[in-house]
Amino acid sequence: MKVLITGGAGFVGSRLAEQLLRQGQLLGRPLAQLVLTDQVAPPDALLADRRVQARVGPLLSQVDALVHEPFDVVFHLASAVSGECEADFELGLRSNLDSTRALLDALRTRQQQGADVTRLVFSSSIAVFGPDPAYPFPAVVGDDTLPMPQTSYGTQKLICEHLVADYTRKGFIDGRCARLVTVTVRPGRPNGAASSFFSSIVREPLAGETAVLPVDLSVRHPVATVSSMVQGLIAVAQASREALVGRSALTLPGLNVSVAEMLDALEAVAGPQVRARVLQQRDERIAGIVANWPQAVRSTRAEALGLQPAQDFSEIIRDYIDDCRLRNPQALKGLNP
Amino acid sequence: MKVLITGGAGFVGSRLAEQLLRQGQLLGRPLAQLVLTDQVAPPDALLADRRVQARVGPLLSQVDALVHEPFDVVFHLASAVSGECEADFELGLRSNLDSTRALLDALRTRQQQGADVTRLVFSSSIAVFGPDPAYPFPAVVGDDTLPMPQTSYGTQKLICEHLVADYTRKGFIDGRCARLVTVTVRPGRPNGAASSFFSSIVREPLAGETAVLPVDLSVRHPVATVSSMVQGLIAVAQASREALVGRSALTLPGLNVSVAEMLDALEAVAGPQVRARVLQQRDERIAGIVANWPQAVRSTRAEALGLQPAQDFSEIIRDYIDDCRLRNPQALKGLNP
Repeated sequence: MKVLITGGAGFVGSRLAEQLLRQGQLLGRPLAQLVLTDQVAPPDALLADRRVQARVGPLLSQVDALVHEPFDVVFHLASAVSGECEADFELGLRSNLDSTRALLDALRTRQQQGADVTRLVFSSSIAVFGPDPAYPFPAVVGDDTLPMPQTSYGTQKLICEHLVADYTRKGFIDGRCARLVTVTVRPGRPNGAASSFFSSIVREPLAGETAVLPVDLSVRHPVATVSSMVQGLIAVAQASREALVGRSALTLPGLNVSVAEMLDALEAVAGPQVRARVLQQRDERIAGIVANWPQAVRSTRAEALGLQPAQDFSEIIRDYIDDCRLRNPQALKGLNP
Repeated sequence: MKVLITGGAGFVGSRLAEQLLRQGQLLGRPLAQLVLTDQVAPPDALLADRRVQARVGPLLSQVDALVHEPFDVVFHLASAVSGECEADFELGLRSNLDSTRALLDALRTRQQQGADVTRLVFSSSIAVFGPDPAYPFPAVVGDDTLPMPQTSYGTQKLICEHLVADYTRKGFIDGRCARLVTVTVRPGRPNGAASSFFSSIVREPLAGETAVLPVDLSVRHPVATVSSMVQGLIAVAQASREALVGRSALTLPGLNVSVAEMLDALEAVAGPQVRARVLQQRDERIAGIVANWPQAVRSTRAEALGLQPAQDFSEIIRDYIDDCRLRNPQALKGLNP
């Protein structure tokens, strides 16, 4: 079993690589080789595994060679993020649309030259959904909600979903699209993303720092741990076509939670003095962006594959704490022992 | 007012050109120049008008020059048809996806260089809708039906709709997408399209020839005259953004009609001896394809622009007869005077 992860040095990509190496197999076959492509090198811990090969550089410059290289499964995670795509339209088109098209065409050319069909998992996003003045945004976004993206990122993800579906229908690839929800708690530092606070309001207090909450306590949003998203990507890769019931895309389960519930869970897990490090300070720009996001998801198709959201936000916080104890205990210095 | 029609020598494109020349204005401004691009030259009658300029050749080779040429309105009708796209995947990608992307990027580059925003009307299709094993196909396809194309043609049309919406949201163009329904009665000869019989069963009997009906009388489908589709494209071009209520795409109205009703109307308009020239001879391949098509549309958004379907199928037949009297009386030689 030879697997490719594009974006394999990123947060989700490197965690997916770790999990695949740990389980040592996919689709019941031993993992012999794991190729990670990305703009940067993957973490040393991954490189230390003799099954791992890293290829650093833009995906677009690497895909043509894939015509001549067999992979059993490709996880296509490489992507410019939402804020980048809004700021630099051509970057988004190139990184998200042209790169995916080139990847699909390389896999198609292989199939047309007689190679086995490659299984491809495309990481899409709930950014394909957006409110639209002509259409009421449903309280819960389901598998049958009309995608109406309101960002270039969401548009490009949706277009790629439809390309994957059509290349699959034609038999060029065996493609599947998993829509990721907002991953929390992301380690590291706050970034420019409007969703950054969903991690900050847990991560910074646990590290003994203050965090700013830029939205109201009543804001609701679906969130998930990175490990559950990794589990979802693997489950989608392993699903039979019958289990996908004739459609390629599905939304991975998220826990539908309010900010108030997130902070209550933080207090329950870490105590009131940790929660007290979150300062409410409304930011109209961020509040406005977040108001356009889905408030909740229902992932019927993913649940049919056995996937479930976290039970509650305490579970998500404990998952992050366990992860920090393993990787970076410094990140917990605000937590009483 | 300078207007471009891509696919301007085709059936719908040349009728649109005729209508624009006849009305002499668009958006209240006199039509000074009408450029028609297509793979073939437009009809002589169009070329005779001094406002018309024809450019023959692939659209993809012509679009780069559009960066330097101002158009007030572009009707983008050029497209490979459904059967071609299924038979030749790369042709579909090139003709329907790459050409549209290149056109949009030329108009974007103009805007980014300081030119006025170009208004663009993209002719999409109800082929964006398709049944899907995971989702019941609604009896009536409305503006809020989840598009799930089951052909490469429909996929490419849907992708272009989302590109148009995003380029519009970013302010690069002022784009709109009109989904055309099946046009009937098309003049000329039967072609390889599965929808060909929707025209044949009226056109051939009126010409004194027999026609084969390959599906059951109970089959239902939305149809419209070419003149109503032309009227729809012009109305969409002239609509304010406010009238489009924040969304780019809409389905043009079609008359939801059964084959039985079509034949009853043929008898009512032309007599039983004309209807008797239609021979029922089920073709499983065609019946199977047609079973995957929308049975009816509801065009709430188009109706809000004042557009209406034909009242009944007799109106559609009479429209065709009037058109033949003007252009090709020979096509009516099976009709008693």
